[in-house]
Amino acid sequence: MAEQITKRSTSYSDWYVDIVLRAQLADYSPVKGSMVIRPRGYALWERMQQALDRMFKETGHSNAYFPLLIPESFLKKEAEHVEGFAPELAVVTHGGGQELEEPLVIRPTSETIIWSMYKKWIQSYRDLPLLINQWANVVRWEKRTRLFLRSTEFLWQEGHTAHETEQEARDETLQMLDVYKRFAEEYMAMPVRTGVKTESEKFAGAVDTYAIEALMQDRRALQAGTSHFLGQNFAKAFDVQYQTREGSLEYVWATSWGVSTRLIGALIMAHSDDSGLVIPPRLAPTEVVLIPIFRNKTKEAVLEAARTLARELRQEFRLELDTDENSSPGWKFAEWEMRGVPIRVELGPRDLENNQVTLVRRDTGEKESVSITAVAGRIRSLLEEIQKNLFDRALAFREENTHRPETWEDMKALFNGTGSDDQAAPGGFALVPWDGDPATEALVKEETKATIRVLPFGNEEEARGKTCVISGKPARHMAVFAKSY
Amino acid sequence: MAEQITKRSTSYSDWYVDIVLRAQLADYSPVKGSMVIRPRGYALWERMQQALDRMFKETGHSNAYFPLLIPESFLKKEAEHVEGFAPELAVVTHGGGQELEEPLVIRPTSETIIWSMYKKWIQSYRDLPLLINQWANVVRWEKRTRLFLRSTEFLWQEGHTAHETEQEARDETLQMLDVYKRFAEEYMAMPVRTGVKTESEKFAGAVDTYAIEALMQDRRALQAGTSHFLGQNFAKAFDVQYQTREGSLEYVWATSWGVSTRLIGALIMAHSDDSGLVIPPRLAPTEVVLIPIFRNKTKEAVLEAARTLARELRQEFRLELDTDENSSPGWKFAEWEMRGVPIRVELGPRDLENNQVTLVRRDTGEKESVSITAVAGRIRSLLEEIQKNLFDRALAFREENTHRPETWEDMKALFNGTGSDDQAAPGGFALVPWDGDPATEALVKEETKATIRVLPFGNEEEARGKTCVISGKPARHMAVFAKSY
Ligand SMILES: [Zn+2]
Ligand SMILES: [Zn+2]
Repeated sequence: MAEQITKRSTSYSDWYVDIVLRAQLADYSPVKGSMVIRPRGYALWERMQQALDRMFKETGHSNAYFPLLIPESFLKKEAEHVEGFAPELAVVTHGGGQELEEPLVIRPTSETIIWSMYKKWIQSYRDLPLLINQWANVVRWEKRTRLFLRSTEFLWQEGHTAHETEQEARDETLQMLDVYKRFAEEYMAMPVRTGVKTESEKFAGAVDTYAIEALMQDRRALQAGTSHFLGQNFAKAFDVQYQTREGSLEYVWATSWGVSTRLIGALIMAHSDDSGLVIPPRLAPTEVVLIPIFRNKTKEAVLEAARTLARELRQEFRLELDTDENSSPGWKFAEWEMRGVPIRVELGPRDLENNQVTLVRRDTGEKESVSITAVAGRIRSLLEEIQKNLFDRALAFREENTHRPETWEDMKALFNGTGSDDQAAPGGFALVPWDGDPATEALVKEETKATIRVLPFGNEEEARGKTCVISGKPARHMAVFAKSY
Repeated sequence: MAEQITKRSTSYSDWYVDIVLRAQLADYSPVKGSMVIRPRGYALWERMQQALDRMFKETGHSNAYFPLLIPESFLKKEAEHVEGFAPELAVVTHGGGQELEEPLVIRPTSETIIWSMYKKWIQSYRDLPLLINQWANVVRWEKRTRLFLRSTEFLWQEGHTAHETEQEARDETLQMLDVYKRFAEEYMAMPVRTGVKTESEKFAGAVDTYAIEALMQDRRALQAGTSHFLGQNFAKAFDVQYQTREGSLEYVWATSWGVSTRLIGALIMAHSDDSGLVIPPRLAPTEVVLIPIFRNKTKEAVLEAARTLARELRQEFRLELDTDENSSPGWKFAEWEMRGVPIRVELGPRDLENNQVTLVRRDTGEKESVSITAVAGRIRSLLEEIQKNLFDRALAFREENTHRPETWEDMKALFNGTGSDDQAAPGGFALVPWDGDPATEALVKEETKATIRVLPFGNEEEARGKTCVISGKPARHMAVFAKSY
């Protein structure tokens, strides 16, 4: 662990993999495309789950669990859905030693199996809204995989709701987008752009897909969560009608929304540095590490003081006390920096004499001496400062890297310049007027590899009277273009 | 929901299914053998998970996540393991539109994939012990399935630990058995017998399998959790050696242990009655339901008092306030009894006048009036009384149904008499001296369908000098026989 990791300026992608492996967040598995989430990575996921699960329950949702295996025929009931997912399916053909009559697919997402159950559970408006979330694993066969960012199997949550009216379903879609935005910004300290996806980028089976999009330090965008307004597509595919308050029969309106362990990849890439992981305090499994520093003579006194302090601080903070005598303080400092613990507390003989400790911030490296009696209060305020600083820093970075190129040549230069990673420059976000034509969108992708990440809220009004920066035709939308993960 | 459910005395198995379906704990799915866990069932599982997860962490374990799909060849590395699981495997043969070079099986349990990773992670005694748990879904193809008790896919946790010495691994195996016993008794209010399994009943690949076994109300045993000492079997199969403190190379010692959503089935069958579910307070998603009772004249005053009381009680208890005006109080009482909520609080106009409420216990049906100022304190003590009463009642039932038949004829009569369910009498537990011969064990199974659930701790000493009740030969073990789920 004391070995150096690749610098971001040398290779951003090697730096990313080094952090994941050396901080022991995840590992490659012998199963091609599948990863192992190691205890330190899983502890991060647990903290994300706790925060999200609380937010889902506060907005009225309950958890449930639906089968992993779905009859192949179910996926075919929604035409766009099967077209989108067919190339990514894992198929079970044998069970219990026998060939199955109908192959089963491992869920790539659960709309079809869930709506086959909603058909049983929904008869009347009294059964609505139905607000269910599932924490589960899903499998999507991938050719090129990257730890956390893209793997054949991943963990996620998927919300699936059913409503009486279009308006109510649309409100739910936007409410959950807002939950994701608040989670990303308040917990992950990661500012996100929100808006609606274009036809070419939306979920297979959705009427409208909304997303939160974050900017990574290499100036690529990362889609961190999606919320879909499904209209009546799945209700029609599975014939889910309900008796309205007026006594007529109507198809139910639907949403679905999800985030996955991909968020861990986003968290790493948003904040970490050349010394390793940087974790925002609210998601840190360990908030504080206490490292006693001593020689033989001072050992007993320092260790006793450290244990007393640890006992006290543990009542309020998630703290680890590192008393390992086989490694040097310097080695430990590097190790705990690699792991991303927000605050390091050093307690040495000199500190003990002066009745103080030294605090070191992971985000800035700043040190300060604090009297022992004031240390809990200072840690409390420092954790908030670090949380805020990480967000502010990421926001400033995003604003610096949000451009409004005024010509197609400028836009191409933005995405096609030469970057530090010896790849074409990722370029950040380009916010430009767009004519709304899929052909124009396709041209940008072909010439720059950038895609439309979202059409921000209010984009149509803002585009009025403007000219599409690519085609020169009248603009219909403001669009956020970026290269992405 | 107001419909009656089948009485236990009419058909115990119909009663069980009625409760699962009518209390909306689970539902059949269109995928043969797989079930859907509905929100009320999943909320029970969440409370079980929280308690168990805390106990696992208190004993030093961390959570992680390993791949769902395992190369078929991995299972074959441990001979007994593959023999045990081969008939139950679901096999993925196609992925991403192509036939796979090597088929992948969906994990029936994760020893093999986990030990293939431990091979990478364990080099030295410094890497030990390795104490990992996983919350996951597994698939075991089953011909005959029953909601919660036996299904093709189920949710569980599986602990997998690696140790320097045999003694340490054996201690871990027994520690986790004790965690399961404490969880069953302190949270589920379900007394369990513990001990070791015989050769014929142990886990495929284990040296020794320990289990907790509970008695259901129909006098059948249910295996509620297992803890396995795996010796060096998986370390040898995956060549996991470590450098000892003395510098030599040795194979690692292993354990694994698990409980599953089957516990929900056990919980239902241990305590519920002909009015529906009975849930021990510590696991109840809702501890208290408050039902205001009013007519038009009294509506406003009663509702306001109920809302005030609900607000206050929610600070301490998981409470639901049922203000639905479309159903009668009597219908609501039956409904909340069906759902198993431990305490019902009734607040009517007369109660309001007297500044009191009526409390009704789910376990005994007893009613009492309590002054509004004393209600929180009384609920607090009543929840503890109910938790204790459920355990005491289940323990008394088990003791009444634990027999020590002195002849093989008596033992056959115990298991082969005619029971209330028009099946052969389940008979309860028979604790008898056994000669230790698998042929004797097989004879009992053939003639009575009873199997050895466990050999209790200290069984060899207790058997000394006794005669096997089946064969008349000298006894080597005391054995607990029972018919089981
Ligand atoms: Zn438009
Ligand atoms: Zn023996």
